[in-house]
Amino acid sequence: MKKHILIVPGDGIGQEVTAVGKQVLDKIAAKFNHDFTYDEALIGHVAIEATGNPLPDETLVKMKASDAILFGAVGHPKYDNDPTAKVRPEQGLLKMRKELGLYANIRPIKLFDELLGASSIKPEILKGADILFFRELTGDIYFGEKGRKNNGDTAFDVAEYSRFEVERIARKAFDAAMTRGKKLMSVDKANVIETSRLWREVVQKVALEYPEVEVTHQFVDSCAMMLIKDPKQFDVVVTANLFGDILTDEASQIAGSMGMLASASIGDGTGVYEPIHGSAHDITGKGVANPLASILSAALLLDISFGLKAESELVISTVDKVLKEGYRTRDIADATTPADKILGTVAMGAEVLKFL
Amino acid sequence: MKKHILIVPGDGIGQEVTAVGKQVLDKIAAKFNHDFTYDEALIGHVAIEATGNPLPDETLVKMKASDAILFGAVGHPKYDNDPTAKVRPEQGLLKMRKELGLYANIRPIKLFDELLGASSIKPEILKGADILFFRELTGDIYFGEKGRKNNGDTAFDVAEYSRFEVERIARKAFDAAMTRGKKLMSVDKANVIETSRLWREVVQKVALEYPEVEVTHQFVDSCAMMLIKDPKQFDVVVTANLFGDILTDEASQIAGSMGMLASASIGDGTGVYEPIHGSAHDITGKGVANPLASILSAALLLDISFGLKAESELVISTVDKVLKEGYRTRDIADATTPADKILGTVAMGAEVLKFL
Ligand SMILES: CC(C)[C@H](C(=O)O)[C@@H](O)C(=O)O
Ligand SMILES: CC(C)[C@H](C(=O)O)[C@@H](O)C(=O)O
Repeated sequence: MKKHILIVPGDGIGQEVTAVGKQVLDKIAAKFNHDFTYDEALIGHVAIEATGNPLPDETLVKMKASDAILFGAVGHPKYDNDPTAKVRPEQGLLKMRKELGLYANIRPIKLFDELLGASSIKPEILKGADILFFRELTGDIYFGEKGRKNNGDTAFDVAEYSRFEVERIARKAFDAAMTRGKKLMSVDKANVIETSRLWREVVQKVALEYPEVEVTHQFVDSCAMMLIKDPKQFDVVVTANLFGDILTDEASQIAGSMGMLASASIGDGTGVYEPIHGSAHDITGKGVANPLASILSAALLLDISFGLKAESELVISTVDKVLKEGYRTRDIADATTPADKILGTVAMGAEVLKFL
Repeated sequence: MKKHILIVPGDGIGQEVTAVGKQVLDKIAAKFNHDFTYDEALIGHVAIEATGNPLPDETLVKMKASDAILFGAVGHPKYDNDPTAKVRPEQGLLKMRKELGLYANIRPIKLFDELLGASSIKPEILKGADILFFRELTGDIYFGEKGRKNNGDTAFDVAEYSRFEVERIARKAFDAAMTRGKKLMSVDKANVIETSRLWREVVQKVALEYPEVEVTHQFVDSCAMMLIKDPKQFDVVVTANLFGDILTDEASQIAGSMGMLASASIGDGTGVYEPIHGSAHDITGKGVANPLASILSAALLLDISFGLKAESELVISTVDKVLKEGYRTRDIADATTPADKILGTVAMGAEVLKFL
């Protein structure tokens, strides 16, 4: 198979982990006789530094021309501590999502058995948990009008959803539920928020097309509680952009560490595959970032954008094998991990490549 | 001390648990020679059924005339499943918060040692966790304009904050931090949302008045993750209405169960004290609801609205004693709890009264 992949490392540890993710794609290409070509492009803080623009036109052109994108992370403390900054790394990320029509962000939350001990949650609560999140990614308060009024003394943000936007993500989630446990939870705050009431109305309507799927509606506050109390009760979850942002970060603890979680953003055009962790400037440059989320993002890329199921499964089972061998990055090590099994980013990548 | 207390049970288990909370207030009055008088008023679904209005004028008049309010819960599945309902129980709750100027919702998250085993989180992660949440309660997307456009095909909600609103809640949180561990975390989504950028600006400014307090700013997604990963790192947390709603429900798992958590809503007028759990119609009328959150709400009432520290502490230590005796409601029982120690709402209340 001939494919062109764009690597977009972005900021912080994004650089370090996508380098490893790319090596894995390369190895898979060699092993399965695919012809993968690569290019690289800037986004976020590094793009602002180089061009003044968090999503340079050149990057966008390359994105649209590629078959899939392996993405790192964006963000920089410099802007976080300056709430008045006009140009921000995240604008690049949001513009990319909008321009590529990436309305569905898919985040599988599944614990590798070897990491049962790495979570702060009790093993017996976790064992068997397997959740597939569908987070809407191009609407909500992220993309509505925002600004100041009253001489800058009042700030506002508008959250918005149209029926069409809810329908298309709901359908993706229902389709996925049909291939799994046939349970779908839609999460909203319909007791307070109008966008949530529209959300619930539309999900109820789409549900009629999937009579086999058992549908529940939960308020976001209650869902945030249930995720920790009893994660095994979940199958597929569909929710709005902001709620999905919060709930999936929370749910990362079900998988032991943020450093293990990959995501796929898909929709109208090129798919983007990225860890759910951020740029993590506190550990940037130290060589300790966990590359497994980027490697698992590569696995999602192979499966979803290229339809290469066997290749994707090989990557996932290899990660499993490396964990079974006892190798850990710092974030997933626990008190019982021998010091010589705690690896940095590159060494962990090398173990995966070795077993591939 | 002579005080007039309004009991507002509201919906579902609100009725059952406030009845117990009131008994505890009564017992305290008798023991310490206070003169507490009571009245009762309707809110929520029961108020809609009786008057058509989720917050009848009569209730509001009684609220404003009382010295403190012991509150139950509002909500009913009937409305949850009908996103098009025009009159809803929650409107009563929100109107009460606005009319009484209850801008600060205080939610202490602390685990009773005896319940270490009841949580889904590992005991060693939990032990010693003690978090005080300040949730802003009269602004944000809860109270902004909301509605439909494009022939009802698009829904919108406006989130809004003024400097003044952020400042007053921030000050309350900083004041509390000064009496505790002198650490304050402000939670927002300033990398995306304009109201969050104003929030961060104002908190940074208020922080200058409290040089002794160590301030951090966290994005809400990251905070949702940290709460589970390492709850002990938190001291005081201050956040906006919606984020506070989600994060405190999540944090209930740190305290073993939602059924243990009390809250105080304070501001310009009469204070309102209520469990953070909801109306829980699935267990309503079964007599199994945990009354301890309502009892602990009564303790907050005694302390915050009446300044009765000793009385408040006695209630809390009595709850502790009852737990030490091994008594549990269903929600906080675990596999090791003997069947005869698992009590219903009334019996659990009776144990607390007995030890008071
Ligand atoms: C960096 C930030 C804007 C982004 C988001 O909120 O969507 C991130 O948290 C994510 O989840 O991809
Ligand atoms: C019932 C609901 C409107 C309410 C809220 O969202 O504020 C509740 O969840 C709470 O936390 O008091």
